[in-house]
Amino acid sequence: MNHEKQYAPLGVFDSGVGGLTVAREIMRQLPQERIIYFGDTARVPYGTKSRETVTRYSRQIVHFLLGKGVKAIVVACNTASAFALEEIREELPVPIIGVVKPGAKVAAETTGNGIIGVIGTEATISSQLYTRTIHEHNPNAVVIGKACPLFVSLVEEGWLKDPITVAVAQRYLESFRQSGMDTLIMGCTHYPLLRSTLRGILGETVNLVNPAYETARGLKELLEGHGILNDGNGVCQGTKHQFYVSDAAEKFKNFANSILPCEIKEAQLIHIEE
Amino acid sequence: MNHEKQYAPLGVFDSGVGGLTVAREIMRQLPQERIIYFGDTARVPYGTKSRETVTRYSRQIVHFLLGKGVKAIVVACNTASAFALEEIREELPVPIIGVVKPGAKVAAETTGNGIIGVIGTEATISSQLYTRTIHEHNPNAVVIGKACPLFVSLVEEGWLKDPITVAVAQRYLESFRQSGMDTLIMGCTHYPLLRSTLRGILGETVNLVNPAYETARGLKELLEGHGILNDGNGVCQGTKHQFYVSDAAEKFKNFANSILPCEIKEAQLIHIEE
Repeated sequence: MNHEKQYAPLGVFDSGVGGLTVAREIMRQLPQERIIYFGDTARVPYGTKSRETVTRYSRQIVHFLLGKGVKAIVVACNTASAFALEEIREELPVPIIGVVKPGAKVAAETTGNGIIGVIGTEATISSQLYTRTIHEHNPNAVVIGKACPLFVSLVEEGWLKDPITVAVAQRYLESFRQSGMDTLIMGCTHYPLLRSTLRGILGETVNLVNPAYETARGLKELLEGHGILNDGNGVCQGTKHQFYVSDAAEKFKNFANSILPCEIKEAQLIHIEE
Repeated sequence: MNHEKQYAPLGVFDSGVGGLTVAREIMRQLPQERIIYFGDTARVPYGTKSRETVTRYSRQIVHFLLGKGVKAIVVACNTASAFALEEIREELPVPIIGVVKPGAKVAAETTGNGIIGVIGTEATISSQLYTRTIHEHNPNAVVIGKACPLFVSLVEEGWLKDPITVAVAQRYLESFRQSGMDTLIMGCTHYPLLRSTLRGILGETVNLVNPAYETARGLKELLEGHGILNDGNGVCQGTKHQFYVSDAAEKFKNFANSILPCEIKEAQLIHIEE
């Protein structure tokens, strides 16, 4: 056990608020861990940007988090996990985990008929990382990807169960109708907020995979493997989580308080590009 | 006439591709002018960001354009015009014009019954700049603003006349149903691409104002006023327009070639924050 490091905080970052669904899962499954969260609200969304730009932005954020003394980093954004994680991993003195591989692994291992759908941003789908990772675990799986760019805007508009959102989801999910798919990965951190709309269209027979849940499980294993899982006995126990954003701190705080199990008192604004 | 300056290019910028509708109007109305266009495709959209962030980004872009020797600057983005223009104007050695004031002025002057609607991003509507400017020209006008955040995503998805887009537009325009409005300002550079959908819902009696058209007219007056309108006889005549973006240059080029009257051979990628 690495006594010095186990009580250090975790760094968690996302392009904006979506990654809070991952932070929420970490708080549930690893309640003894402290989180330093960064949401890049000034430059959101990442899902329409290029690999080079997403990697540059991710690198800036990782350096910020390292400066805060984090013991490990969680990339709580599918696009950044797909585009930036592997390149950045090699530069890092601490372990890093994204949301794509844990979600892909569980889908590959739990599918009954080997037909798996993936929905996500344009960037995540075009990266093909879900497909490649599923094939590492289940070489015969058939993987069908579909970019759903309007979903993020609809979630941010708050139209979670609106007839318009249902119509958009029906349009996007049309791609899967004839596929026989038994598993669908919600490959963007906003999408679990549309779970009941997706469930209504797909029926009960399709298993919906939420990578946030699997990522928190994978994180526990990663921390144990490095001997840095917080045992809850350290001096830092009870110290609050910290939240940083690159824009609109008040709006972020309000959204966070609507979905997190704890109350955030403050989100601090920083200029991440400097 | 300022001979040295009249043959210098114009700087035109937007958060992304929307400002190309303004560039197109300038090319039509002032074909002798050269344009240096910057689209901040890495940080698009501006419409959900704070005043402080939009102003900081706009300032970076303006400095880039000044470095290119522009004789005047057109803020071809409603959000940046609403949030950043007045603050930046004071720092500039060249004249600057935005899209809000020309559109507001013509709406104020042409309305029959004095009831004017404005649709735009959250930022543009919350800034109240359209309302204030309309009241400068027509103190008794009733101005009704409505943010339509999904419109940009729908345009970028290419669903310009789709039944889903019609349903979204009906929802947003519901705010104006009982108002008696005779004029609607399309206060975001993406929205003129939805003109026929808006027209279908509103009928023929509502005048749709496209600020891009009014901005190009206002620009001509501004350049004449400063003695820097290009007379078309200079050595630079025929030199091509130049396009710069902060991300995804190829995608930008393809979009630009679908809406501009001339063919773009290249959009150059630059890191605007450095």
